[in-house]
Amino acid sequence: MFRTHNLGELNITNKDQQVTLCGWVHKTRDLGGMTFIDLRDRYGITQLAFNLEKNSELCLKARSLGREFVIQVAGKVIERSSKNLQISTGEIEIEVLQLNILNISKTPPFTIEDQSDGGDELRMKYRYLDIRRNVIKDNLLLRNKISLETRKYLSNIDFIEVETPYLIKSTPEGARDFIVPSRMNQGQFYALPQSPQTFKQLLMVGGMDKYYQIVKCFRDEDLRADRQPEFTQIDCEMSFVDQEEILMTFEGLTKHLIKEIKGVEINEFPKISYDEAISLYGSDKPDIRFDMKFIDFTKSSKGYNFQVFDNAEIIIGFVVKGCANFSRKQLDKLIDFVKTPQVGATGLIYCKFNEDGTIKSSVDKFFSDEIKNIWKENASCNEGDLLLMMSGETEKTRKALGTLRLKLAEDLNMRNPKEFAPLWVVDFPLLEWDEDSQRYHAMHHPFTAPKTEDIAKIKTDPKSVRANAYDLVLNGNEIGGGSIRIHDKELQKQMFTHLGFTDEEAKEQFGFLMDAFEYGAPPHGGIAFGFDRLCAILGGEESIRDFIAFPKNNSGRDVMIDSPSYISKDQLDELKIRNL
Amino acid sequence: MFRTHNLGELNITNKDQQVTLCGWVHKTRDLGGMTFIDLRDRYGITQLAFNLEKNSELCLKARSLGREFVIQVAGKVIERSSKNLQISTGEIEIEVLQLNILNISKTPPFTIEDQSDGGDELRMKYRYLDIRRNVIKDNLLLRNKISLETRKYLSNIDFIEVETPYLIKSTPEGARDFIVPSRMNQGQFYALPQSPQTFKQLLMVGGMDKYYQIVKCFRDEDLRADRQPEFTQIDCEMSFVDQEEILMTFEGLTKHLIKEIKGVEINEFPKISYDEAISLYGSDKPDIRFDMKFIDFTKSSKGYNFQVFDNAEIIIGFVVKGCANFSRKQLDKLIDFVKTPQVGATGLIYCKFNEDGTIKSSVDKFFSDEIKNIWKENASCNEGDLLLMMSGETEKTRKALGTLRLKLAEDLNMRNPKEFAPLWVVDFPLLEWDEDSQRYHAMHHPFTAPKTEDIAKIKTDPKSVRANAYDLVLNGNEIGGGSIRIHDKELQKQMFTHLGFTDEEAKEQFGFLMDAFEYGAPPHGGIAFGFDRLCAILGGEESIRDFIAFPKNNSGRDVMIDSPSYISKDQLDELKIRNL
Repeated sequence: MFRTHNLGELNITNKDQQVTLCGWVHKTRDLGGMTFIDLRDRYGITQLAFNLEKNSELCLKARSLGREFVIQVAGKVIERSSKNLQISTGEIEIEVLQLNILNISKTPPFTIEDQSDGGDELRMKYRYLDIRRNVIKDNLLLRNKISLETRKYLSNIDFIEVETPYLIKSTPEGARDFIVPSRMNQGQFYALPQSPQTFKQLLMVGGMDKYYQIVKCFRDEDLRADRQPEFTQIDCEMSFVDQEEILMTFEGLTKHLIKEIKGVEINEFPKISYDEAISLYGSDKPDIRFDMKFIDFTKSSKGYNFQVFDNAEIIIGFVVKGCANFSRKQLDKLIDFVKTPQVGATGLIYCKFNEDGTIKSSVDKFFSDEIKNIWKENASCNEGDLLLMMSGETEKTRKALGTLRLKLAEDLNMRNPKEFAPLWVVDFPLLEWDEDSQRYHAMHHPFTAPKTEDIAKIKTDPKSVRANAYDLVLNGNEIGGGSIRIHDKELQKQMFTHLGFTDEEAKEQFGFLMDAFEYGAPPHGGIAFGFDRLCAILGGEESIRDFIAFPKNNSGRDVMIDSPSYISKDQLDELKIRNL
Repeated sequence: MFRTHNLGELNITNKDQQVTLCGWVHKTRDLGGMTFIDLRDRYGITQLAFNLEKNSELCLKARSLGREFVIQVAGKVIERSSKNLQISTGEIEIEVLQLNILNISKTPPFTIEDQSDGGDELRMKYRYLDIRRNVIKDNLLLRNKISLETRKYLSNIDFIEVETPYLIKSTPEGARDFIVPSRMNQGQFYALPQSPQTFKQLLMVGGMDKYYQIVKCFRDEDLRADRQPEFTQIDCEMSFVDQEEILMTFEGLTKHLIKEIKGVEINEFPKISYDEAISLYGSDKPDIRFDMKFIDFTKSSKGYNFQVFDNAEIIIGFVVKGCANFSRKQLDKLIDFVKTPQVGATGLIYCKFNEDGTIKSSVDKFFSDEIKNIWKENASCNEGDLLLMMSGETEKTRKALGTLRLKLAEDLNMRNPKEFAPLWVVDFPLLEWDEDSQRYHAMHHPFTAPKTEDIAKIKTDPKSVRANAYDLVLNGNEIGGGSIRIHDKELQKQMFTHLGFTDEEAKEQFGFLMDAFEYGAPPHGGIAFGFDRLCAILGGEESIRDFIAFPKNNSGRDVMIDSPSYISKDQLDELKIRNL
């Protein structure tokens, strides 16, 4: 036995016990006659005490230890004279009688502290050291806990986890596939799954009834910040359910996780339609931890010779409570912000309803106080509030104002990571127009069921057809999305036609699914959660990278193992492929 | 709501309740005035009753339903007149008041019964229908339960599950990698992991202390029967442990699984050394549900003018209890069996110790009863027992006799799938000679620690160096294997030299691991379980295929989705590769 206890479990109740401990030298402090070592492992830190007078040889050996040396000590648990009540082991220390160096360590390239001096590059290259830091370690422990709780919750309500294959078939629909050359089937390729979508539907056809899987998925996309080529999903599917039942089920899961992980109880999740979300927040994933809903001023604000408004398709704004006292400089900064390419607006109108009853706006030349009081009433403004307005083409203006809304919430510390505001966004459009290919694409995926009452419009007004599709949004992040699927072969065929697939293409790519649907497919639907994102949000962070043990950088490289890499000609020859 | 209950939960306590049910039409029986339908879902079968007289329209509609139609019915739970006490729902039936066809079905290509009329090819092509059969469904439910119990057990003793990456780096050591061309890093490739070996060791360097993962692994090998290109492992690693502690921990896991899944309690697992296993059973994964240990007759059986024995390096045999009455035909069959290429022996000697005290052997010409009585004593034979013997070159003879031992056990029904006989095989050789490359290979993998007392022999007698490596064998199958790892950089360097790696090769392939070992690697070791195999054995089967939802065939093809497949030139162009 290397150790009798870990470094997080000893406390005053263990006083006088003989113990053997192992861990990493976190810190050494020499105080004249005494040397103290903070010994660290995954579970905590335990203080070791060496007395120069009592045992000079041992104490000098202790003093010679470098940071991150791996040691084993035997000794007695004693009460500390100066206690540290911040940590569970803070009332005791170990009077060391034996010290055994298990491994030495070079000086690490950055400090193993909560606030490390390692930059991102260095931390990634030495990720195995980065993981020793509490921050990353705790993230990985959290991730483990979330996956355990997810499995516990779902298996308690009869979901079963089924592993679907990783070596599947490439489909041109959707994002770009990673492909895998087959040696045994020359000239042919597997693809890594972008999601187990078709397999989970086949499992429903197979009568599995309630399926889930915590599973890796792969997309060969150009990586924006905070996207990974491999990522994890909680993938779920249910049979004999309507949309409402799916929402209830996964609202239950989400509540369970927030309660078990964060200790926060949440009531019924609000639901809004996609259209509402766009018109109230300029986003299909609104952060509703704060208000600042959009108000429409289009009718009330035209015809006052203010060309910008008069020529606009839409005039919208929102109220920033208590911020009429924003300085000129603060407002100019906001105007600069909306003009950045990231937002892409041409300008921003403000109107301050001052505490003293006066009104000051950037458009005083055009609008009388009378009009501004109408704005005030429309927006339910009070004295002391600031009104921000934008105008222009509808879609762009909403998006820009939505971005401004988030920025202000950020600046005003309204995005509290300890608060959790989930929201269902429902009634997504079935189709979206793709400029590149000049045709409609499935917004969700080609198996999504249209709303029965909208099917008739599919030819005449495709854009207005709504789907039985839904997203779960948490604190302004889409953490899950899904739909009711088409289980009828004829409707599925129609859909493929509308999506511009020829019969051959549909058969080539989805033939096995359409075949399966001929043998008694049950009504079914499901959802998939972005697990990395969910972990990050429950961990109070926006970036997913530090919730993944070994992430890749923005070029898809693992800088620690230096991958991808060149491979031998022999390997390529065996696969009968060559680099161009 | 599509349904109020599933089809496995209604019983006599639900009598008179109004219910709505959904499922597949399993069987229809017309008995004159009554039509009965067995409606099936994952949870069971519930009988539906239609009365022609009471509601002829509904009854005729019921009669028109084909096999595997998906229907929804509303009705009342009533007590059956003729009960079926074999199933939980067998005391009740549903008096149907409404019937709604949710989906039709073509006639399936095979029957959805425990004994299906579908051959392997057909079952694989229509796997989504195969999964509806109890046999496959129960296997998948079993697999889910085993993975849940594994996670429960390991997380209770502080193991945390950490997801390691799937897009990693190709290493020529070991089996052949599947590779993935990188689009963003032209000319470079990822590899899919054969196991998370290096990552789990890095997690130990990172202080994770106790890691596990139920994880897919990939090997591009020519597929023997019952091998899959993608397979699942329970992968585990621990820090600050010696071999004994690892064995205890995973003996605990295995006991837990056998108890929870099969209700069988097992005492301490026996342990034998690799050398012992080979000499007693001719196998490093002996099935010890039955005895038939090998006895060495080399000393006692030479010098009797029987050339076969006289020229043999080894003469060994085993006793088949109570089988002295084997007929000539039975014995000839055994002799034919050992001569098949699969066994490769030149012959088999038998000696019957008959119940009446007489002795009859195939070598009576050479050996007197006196000698045969010495054999009898050596082998602890009784009257009525059969002794089988083989001779020749040591390794080959042991292997052949081991194969015969298994065949006899099979024939004599001694391989009871309801009995569980686990066994630790320890002290594996560190190295094995590879004829192809004319050098020593790591038997386990290049990070396996040699036994301290054997290190000195590494240059003088490499073959005799034992490793701190162990396998867990269950009913004659290796279900797990692992080792204590080398955590010392110098020893690891030595090992690479012995394995014929140049410094550059070692650095190129394992540089990151060797670098990591410079920053305080703890002593560590681990194990990996073959999860598919474990599920199969706990399911009482030898073949893994039906414990995998969507397996591939022996050419690595998924015949259901028809993958691998050809991909477009555009895709290849983007990846800058081409087929030769």
